[in-house]
Amino acid sequence: MSTPKPMRVQVEEYILDLQERIVSALEKLDPNAPSFKRDSWVRAQGGKGLSCVFAVPEASHSDAAAPVSVLEKAGVNISVVHGSLPPAAIKQMRVEHSSIPYDPNTTTALPFFASGISLVIHPRNPHAPTVHANYRYFEITESEDSEKGPGRVIAWWFGGGCDLTPSYLYEKDAIHFHETLKNACDPHGTAIYPAFKKWCDEYFFIPHRQEARGIGGIFFDDLCDQTHARLADDVARPRTPEDIFAFVRSTGDAFIPSYIPILEQRINTAFTPRERRWQLIRRGRYVEFNLVYDRGTKFGLATPGARIESILMSLPETARWEYMSELGTEEGSEEEKLVRVLKTPEQWV
Amino acid sequence: MSTPKPMRVQVEEYILDLQERIVSALEKLDPNAPSFKRDSWVRAQGGKGLSCVFAVPEASHSDAAAPVSVLEKAGVNISVVHGSLPPAAIKQMRVEHSSIPYDPNTTTALPFFASGISLVIHPRNPHAPTVHANYRYFEITESEDSEKGPGRVIAWWFGGGCDLTPSYLYEKDAIHFHETLKNACDPHGTAIYPAFKKWCDEYFFIPHRQEARGIGGIFFDDLCDQTHARLADDVARPRTPEDIFAFVRSTGDAFIPSYIPILEQRINTAFTPRERRWQLIRRGRYVEFNLVYDRGTKFGLATPGARIESILMSLPETARWEYMSELGTEEGSEEEKLVRVLKTPEQWV
Repeated sequence: MSTPKPMRVQVEEYILDLQERIVSALEKLDPNAPSFKRDSWVRAQGGKGLSCVFAVPEASHSDAAAPVSVLEKAGVNISVVHGSLPPAAIKQMRVEHSSIPYDPNTTTALPFFASGISLVIHPRNPHAPTVHANYRYFEITESEDSEKGPGRVIAWWFGGGCDLTPSYLYEKDAIHFHETLKNACDPHGTAIYPAFKKWCDEYFFIPHRQEARGIGGIFFDDLCDQTHARLADDVARPRTPEDIFAFVRSTGDAFIPSYIPILEQRINTAFTPRERRWQLIRRGRYVEFNLVYDRGTKFGLATPGARIESILMSLPETARWEYMSELGTEEGSEEEKLVRVLKTPEQWV
Repeated sequence: MSTPKPMRVQVEEYILDLQERIVSALEKLDPNAPSFKRDSWVRAQGGKGLSCVFAVPEASHSDAAAPVSVLEKAGVNISVVHGSLPPAAIKQMRVEHSSIPYDPNTTTALPFFASGISLVIHPRNPHAPTVHANYRYFEITESEDSEKGPGRVIAWWFGGGCDLTPSYLYEKDAIHFHETLKNACDPHGTAIYPAFKKWCDEYFFIPHRQEARGIGGIFFDDLCDQTHARLADDVARPRTPEDIFAFVRSTGDAFIPSYIPILEQRINTAFTPRERRWQLIRRGRYVEFNLVYDRGTKFGLATPGARIESILMSLPETARWEYMSELGTEEGSEEEKLVRVLKTPEQWV
């Protein structure tokens, strides 16, 4: 019997394949548009990545013209990085991962390995929703021994999620999206979807607007073999690296069937300048969440030498801010219908 | 001899008058545009304000149309608020204002009073710069005595500044702007302009881009009768409330002559779609600074019950984010000329 591949290798292979499948599916949807730009990069401190980015900046300058492409801006990125975790960061991580040894007086850093896929897709049509997904694997090891190679893994976990941000609410789409995610979760434990759906609603919340960024999906972090803050100890759920990776693959594989049929349904809907305006106002809220609250973005911006272009790729091509806009406040309007759901998250399935 | 008016009353009268003068000057510049919307508001916890806002959201939806107005979005706001300062906030303020009594075991709040004028003007033409100005007065008093009325003032200070954010650099405009501010500062002490110009360059800096938001101006805070962190003790500078207020009036009055002539010069310049695109990218940077770093914005967003519409009025009507944009990177281009100055602030006068 051959030794199983280390998890970090399995994850890397999976996200590379998933990225390719997602980019192909998006390109197939719009054969006349330019293809995604493949941008591979190397991190001086250790690691590499491949950014697949869609943009048509010049052609899309004027909103008045007929849509030139299905997508307005999109990025499907993977990164596989490793490095050294300073004691302060280790201390922070110990809150959720008690297996990490930590001596308060130490000045020793520990090696880490992190890989993940992260995507944001902003379509052009106001009736087609923005989507975000992110799946990642994190490992901390003992310090490397020059003779024996990489040190023993002392902590590891998976995190991720996927959430939808429409400008106009189509209940049918919201149900399809949540149902697809639920169906991906349920075989791994029926407690998972409700717990991670709730976590998603809580995470993608804009306190100063008192509204959610979108209509949710799933969100999770720190999923490993230890006690989990969001899942009772006695519920059925994956606990081994292999089982959790199977769960993550299941949700990652669900991305295309959860989102592409919605895109296909909405990208040819006729829209008015008012609808485009509302879409851009909603994109403004997206910017507010990402710049003010998103942990990944804040962490990235505060990291010296971070790749800003990759971090801020999640921002839409265009966003609007109006003072006291009437859009979204007129009772019974389609805009207000969305806002109502953002203020009080619904159970879609 | 009559008792002089309390400073809080003098400041309130001044900012109300300055607001009116600035709004009139802007309206006179563009007589065919809609006038500013006057929006007065009352704060439940104590205080009031008057927001004067310019916006033409519907007409400006399409960038392709001929400019419909000189301004794209502008707000000239004043607020006069009072309330109660919790011990944690008092502790924070004591760093700069040692006259504030503070007992680490106290749970007593102290009354505060704050008034100020705050403005942001985003013109439509990419050759016309965005401007921001803010002048404010802060007071902390002893707790009110129901018999004697308002308590004695135990700490007070002025803060403020004014800075210019062009998308295209016209040295002539930069020199005019800085010169006007310098001329407003110099009669109150020649050390002031250099110190506050430097402070402005440092404050309006976007670390993750390693560039300034704009070409600066002046910025100051905590200006009172005590030792000042940015001005040596032996330099000539205003120290009494009346003298500092005279300095603040001088810089406040300089706003119209510092900015309006630049607007007049640039608002009819022909521009290309590329120039508009670059302007919107620069507005994206403006959003990044305001949402991620600006202390006032961050404080406002974190304040429960704050008036979000007033706080975020500083954001442009439209902003753009492009992945790896070539704009600003082409050596010798007008866009790159601006970026160079943002990376290394110049001495304009």
